[in-house]
Amino acid sequence: METPNTKDKYEKVMDLAKRRGYLWSSFEIYGGIAGFVDYAPLGAMLKNNIIDTWRKHYITNEEFYEIDCPTITPHDVLKASGHVDNFTDPMIECKECLESYRADHIIEENIDIDTEGKTLEELQQLMETHKITCPKCSGQFGEVKSYNLMFLTSIGPSGNRIGYMRPETAQGIFIQFRRLSQFFRNKLPFGVAQIGKAYRNEISPRQGVIRLREFTQAEAEFFVHPTIKEHKKFKEVENDVIPLLPASRQMDESLPKDEKVINMSLKDAVENNIIRHETIAYFVAITKRFLLDIGIDSSKLRFRQHLPDEMAHYAIDCWDAEIYTDRFGWIECVGIADRTDFDLKAHMENSGVDLSIFVEYDEPKEIETYEIELNYKVVGKVFKKDMKLVSDALNELDNNEMEKLVNTIKNGEEYILKVGDKEFTILEDYLTAKKVQKKVMGEKVLPHVIEPSHGIDRITFCLLEHSFNEEEDRTYLSINPTVSPIKVGVFPLVNKQGMPEIAMDIKNNLRKNGILAEYDDSGAIGRRYMRMDEVGAPFCITVDGQTLEDNTITIRERDSREQIRIKIEEVVDYIKNKL
Amino acid sequence: METPNTKDKYEKVMDLAKRRGYLWSSFEIYGGIAGFVDYAPLGAMLKNNIIDTWRKHYITNEEFYEIDCPTITPHDVLKASGHVDNFTDPMIECKECLESYRADHIIEENIDIDTEGKTLEELQQLMETHKITCPKCSGQFGEVKSYNLMFLTSIGPSGNRIGYMRPETAQGIFIQFRRLSQFFRNKLPFGVAQIGKAYRNEISPRQGVIRLREFTQAEAEFFVHPTIKEHKKFKEVENDVIPLLPASRQMDESLPKDEKVINMSLKDAVENNIIRHETIAYFVAITKRFLLDIGIDSSKLRFRQHLPDEMAHYAIDCWDAEIYTDRFGWIECVGIADRTDFDLKAHMENSGVDLSIFVEYDEPKEIETYEIELNYKVVGKVFKKDMKLVSDALNELDNNEMEKLVNTIKNGEEYILKVGDKEFTILEDYLTAKKVQKKVMGEKVLPHVIEPSHGIDRITFCLLEHSFNEEEDRTYLSINPTVSPIKVGVFPLVNKQGMPEIAMDIKNNLRKNGILAEYDDSGAIGRRYMRMDEVGAPFCITVDGQTLEDNTITIRERDSREQIRIKIEEVVDYIKNKL
Repeated sequence: METPNTKDKYEKVMDLAKRRGYLWSSFEIYGGIAGFVDYAPLGAMLKNNIIDTWRKHYITNEEFYEIDCPTITPHDVLKASGHVDNFTDPMIECKECLESYRADHIIEENIDIDTEGKTLEELQQLMETHKITCPKCSGQFGEVKSYNLMFLTSIGPSGNRIGYMRPETAQGIFIQFRRLSQFFRNKLPFGVAQIGKAYRNEISPRQGVIRLREFTQAEAEFFVHPTIKEHKKFKEVENDVIPLLPASRQMDESLPKDEKVINMSLKDAVENNIIRHETIAYFVAITKRFLLDIGIDSSKLRFRQHLPDEMAHYAIDCWDAEIYTDRFGWIECVGIADRTDFDLKAHMENSGVDLSIFVEYDEPKEIETYEIELNYKVVGKVFKKDMKLVSDALNELDNNEMEKLVNTIKNGEEYILKVGDKEFTILEDYLTAKKVQKKVMGEKVLPHVIEPSHGIDRITFCLLEHSFNEEEDRTYLSINPTVSPIKVGVFPLVNKQGMPEIAMDIKNNLRKNGILAEYDDSGAIGRRYMRMDEVGAPFCITVDGQTLEDNTITIRERDSREQIRIKIEEVVDYIKNKL
Repeated sequence: METPNTKDKYEKVMDLAKRRGYLWSSFEIYGGIAGFVDYAPLGAMLKNNIIDTWRKHYITNEEFYEIDCPTITPHDVLKASGHVDNFTDPMIECKECLESYRADHIIEENIDIDTEGKTLEELQQLMETHKITCPKCSGQFGEVKSYNLMFLTSIGPSGNRIGYMRPETAQGIFIQFRRLSQFFRNKLPFGVAQIGKAYRNEISPRQGVIRLREFTQAEAEFFVHPTIKEHKKFKEVENDVIPLLPASRQMDESLPKDEKVINMSLKDAVENNIIRHETIAYFVAITKRFLLDIGIDSSKLRFRQHLPDEMAHYAIDCWDAEIYTDRFGWIECVGIADRTDFDLKAHMENSGVDLSIFVEYDEPKEIETYEIELNYKVVGKVFKKDMKLVSDALNELDNNEMEKLVNTIKNGEEYILKVGDKEFTILEDYLTAKKVQKKVMGEKVLPHVIEPSHGIDRITFCLLEHSFNEEEDRTYLSINPTVSPIKVGVFPLVNKQGMPEIAMDIKNNLRKNGILAEYDDSGAIGRRYMRMDEVGAPFCITVDGQTLEDNTITIRERDSREQIRIKIEEVVDYIKNKL
C-alpha cells in the first residue's frame, strides 16, 4: 500500500469536498458544532446513489423488505434492548475548565495501552497511576463516570414520557417482529432492512465525518431458525477470497503486525471454523461485493473479527468490514454480527407479547409425550370454579413442560402450574399421565438474527478519499459512473454561432432520459474540464465548430482524458451504456 | 363527488394497510404512542417510490440540487428563524385529570366558531364565556398557555447546549445559503431541496397518519431576485387549468360553500392578481403534475389560498394543495409560500454573516454617487493610527450609505461610521464630497425564496385512499404502476411438473432487471390473485400447463382483470413498457 503524506491527503480531500459541494460543516455561520456534517449538493447525491446501490443488493437481489420507523423511541423499547443501561462511554470531566472527555481515549493518548473491555474502576486506576491531567488546562480530573450516549427528549406536553433518539435503526424492526413474520407468512429465513438516521451523543467527537453524533445507517436483519445457520445461496459465494483478520491471529503475538491478515475462501473460513457459520460468511461476501461495486479500493478493505472482550452485549460473533484511510488508518464501516435471539427475547419478556414463530416441519414428526386424565373426584373439590382453567392449561403445556410435570409429581413433589397471574399446586393423585405417540406438525422457535449494519457516512467518506487522484496538471475524483452525482458536463466551445443552444438541448435531452447532466458555459473550456474532473463527472461533451457542420460532438472520458466524436443522436445511448 | 359512508372507508383502508403491510402502529407491542406511524414493507416502498417521482420532477426536471442536513438543530438557528418564539400551539390542561388539549380544538369542538388567528387571551375568553370543561372528566381547565411544539434535547455531555429536533427541513438550507450561492456561481434563480424527517411535538394528536409528531417533508426552496418573480418556464404551464380557492372567494359570504372553487388557467390567475406572481403559479402547476403523476384523483385536488390571518409569520402569500379524504375532508398536503427574505435576513442579523449575493447587471449601469477626498490636515490628528481604517471604510460605503453620510454632515450633524466594533465620528470639515458618474457592474441583493413544501406522509395516505376500490367479489388498490411497491406477482398454477421452477426463474429474471417481482405458490390461485389485488400489484403472471408446451405464460392486468398470453422471453420487455 502507498504511504503518502497522511495529513496532506485528508486535508486535500476535505478541501475539495468543501469547495466543490460534497461536504460542509453544519451550522457553520453560527460557529459550527462537532459531530455534525451537511451533505452538500453533490455529497447528498453521492450518498443517495450509494444507498440506491445498497438497495440493489439487499432489496432487489437478496429480497429483503425495507421498513421505516420513527427515530424518536420511547424509553420502554430501549430499556428492554439494553441501551438505557449499556449504551455508554466512560467519561471524565476536568475540575478546572469543566471540559468533558472520553476516559478511554484520554488514557490511550497518554500511555500505550489498549483500554478495550476495561471497567470504570480499571480506567480510574489507570488515570490515577499515570497521573493523567486535562490536556487543555492541565487541571485535575474528577471520577470516571458512565455516560449514556442517547439524545434524551420527552414526548407530548406533560414531560413525563421519556423518549430517546434511536441509537440504531434495528430496534424498530425487532419490535415489529410479530407483524413482520405474518407478512412473510411465518416462513424462515426472511430479511428486513431499515435505512435512516441514528444518533449517538458523543462526549467529545474530534474526527470529522468519522465520528458523528447523527449518522445514516443501512441495517439488514436476516432472521433465521436458531439452529439452521446455513445459507441457501452460500454455494454462489463460497469461492470468494476475502482478506480476513480472525480474532485468533490478532491475539497471536508470534505473528508480525503486517502478517496477521490472511486471504482465504469463504468455504475454507467456514470449514475451519474461522467464520462461525455460512450466514455470516454469506453476508461478508455480499458486503464485499457491495463495497467494490460502489468503488471502494479492494486493496484497502479487510474483514476483522471482534475480539471476545470487544463484542457488543448482544452478539456471539461479529466481523467488521474495515476500510483503510490515510489519516485514521483502518476504520470500521460495516459490522456483520450474529445477535442470536438476544433482542427478540428481551422484547418478548418486557412487552409480554409472544414473538416466537411456529415453524412447520417438512414432514410431521412422531414424538413421545403424555396424555393427561384428571381425577375429577379429587380435583373438583380442590379447584372448584377454576376447574376449566386448570384443565385447559394442562392440555396446553408444551412437551418439555409436560415431561417436567410428570417427573415432579412422580417423585411425590408439588408442581406449580401458572395460569396468568394465578398459581395452582398439582399433586400426584390429581391425575393419571399416559405415555402416547403423537404427530407434531412443527415447533415454536424464537429466531436468531444475523445483522449486516452499514455506516453510510463512513463509506461515503472512504469512497471520496479512494477516488481522489492527483496528476501533475490536475486533480480528479475517479468516482464510479454508477454512483457519481453528475454524470455529464455539456459545454459549448464558444458562446456564439448557436453552440450554447445545441449544448443546452443535449443537456435537456440527457435529463429527460434520467441522466444528470450539467450545462456550463463559464470561463475557458480548460477550466470547465478542470471543474468537472474535480466534481468527478465521468463524461464531458463539447459542442464545437465541427458540430455545426456534421452534427457530431466530442465526448471526453474523465480518467483517461480520451476524446471521441459521435453523432448527437447517439449521445443518450452511448452514455446509458457506460453507466 | 361521491359521498360514501365516511367512517367505513377510512377503516377499510387502514385495515387493509395493516393487514397487507402498508402502515403499522409504532411501538405497538409496548402499547403504542399517538402521533407516530411505521411504514411497513409495502408502505416504505410506496413512500420511496413517491419520493423518487418527486425527485424526477424537482431534481431531474427543475434542476434543483438536494442537500442533507442534521435533524438535530442548535438553539441559535431556531431562535433566529422565529421557531423558539412562534412555533407554538395554545394549550390547556385539565385541573382534575391533568390531560392536555389544544385550546383551539377544544373550543371548535364545543362551539361553531373559527379560532384561526385568535390570541391566547381571546381563546381564554371563549373558554370562560362558554364554560367549556374537560371532555374526559368534565373537570375545570387551567389558563390557556403557549406551548412550544419542538422536541427539546441537549447536545454533548454538559447539558447546557440546547438543541431541538428540526421543525422543518428548510432552515438547514437557509443557513447554508452562502455556500449554496457559491455552488451556483452566484447566479439567481436557483433551487435547493431537502427530503427528510421533521418533528412537531403535538399536544394531543388524534388523527392517525394525518397528524404525526415525526414526519417526512420534501421541501424545495427556489431563490429569486427580490424584484424578479417571473419564471422563465411559466409559458410551459400557463394554460394549465387549476381548481383555485382564492382568499377573496373564501371570505365572500354571497357565494354558496360549494361554489367557492373556481377553475382558472394560471395565466388568468396571475394576470388577475389572484396568484401573486408567476413563480408561485409555476410551482402550483408542478405540484399538480407531481400529484397526478403518482395517482392522486384529480377531482379530489384543489389549491386554497391562505387567508390573511392564517399566514405563517414568514409568508406574504401561500397556496395549499388540498386533497380530499373521506374522514378528514380537505387536508393540506403541500404548501407553496413566498417566504420573502424573512429567513435570510433573520440569519444574517443573528449570525453576523453576510448572506447577500452580488448580482451582475446584464449591462453595467451609470449611477450618480460621491467621490470622497479626506482633509488630511484635520483628520490626521483626529484618527492617528486608525487613519487607514477610516479611509478604507469610507471608500467601501455603498451608495445609499454614502448619500446618507453626505446629507448628514452637510446639515452640520455628526455621522457615525462603524468599522467592526469601533465607531468614528465624521464631521463636515473632515472631507469634501464630489458628485460623480460611476459605472456599476451589479448590486448586492438579499434573495427572496418561494417554497413548495410537501408532506410526504399525508400524500402517501391520500394516495392509498384514492387507490382503494371495492367490487362485488374483490378489493383492490389501483396504485399507479410507477409507484406501486410490488410490480408483478408470479405464480405456478400447480406446485408440480416443473411449474414452480419456471415461475421462480421468471421472478428472478424480472428482479435482475430491477423489477420488483414476488413469487407465490401458497394456497389456491384465486387467493393469490386476491392477495395481489389487495397489495396493488399491477400484473400477475401465471405458469400453467400450456407453458410447458409452448413457453407462453398469462399476464393478468389488475384493474381490468384482462389476461393475455405472451412468450416467456417477452415478459421483461412487456412489463418494462407498462411501467
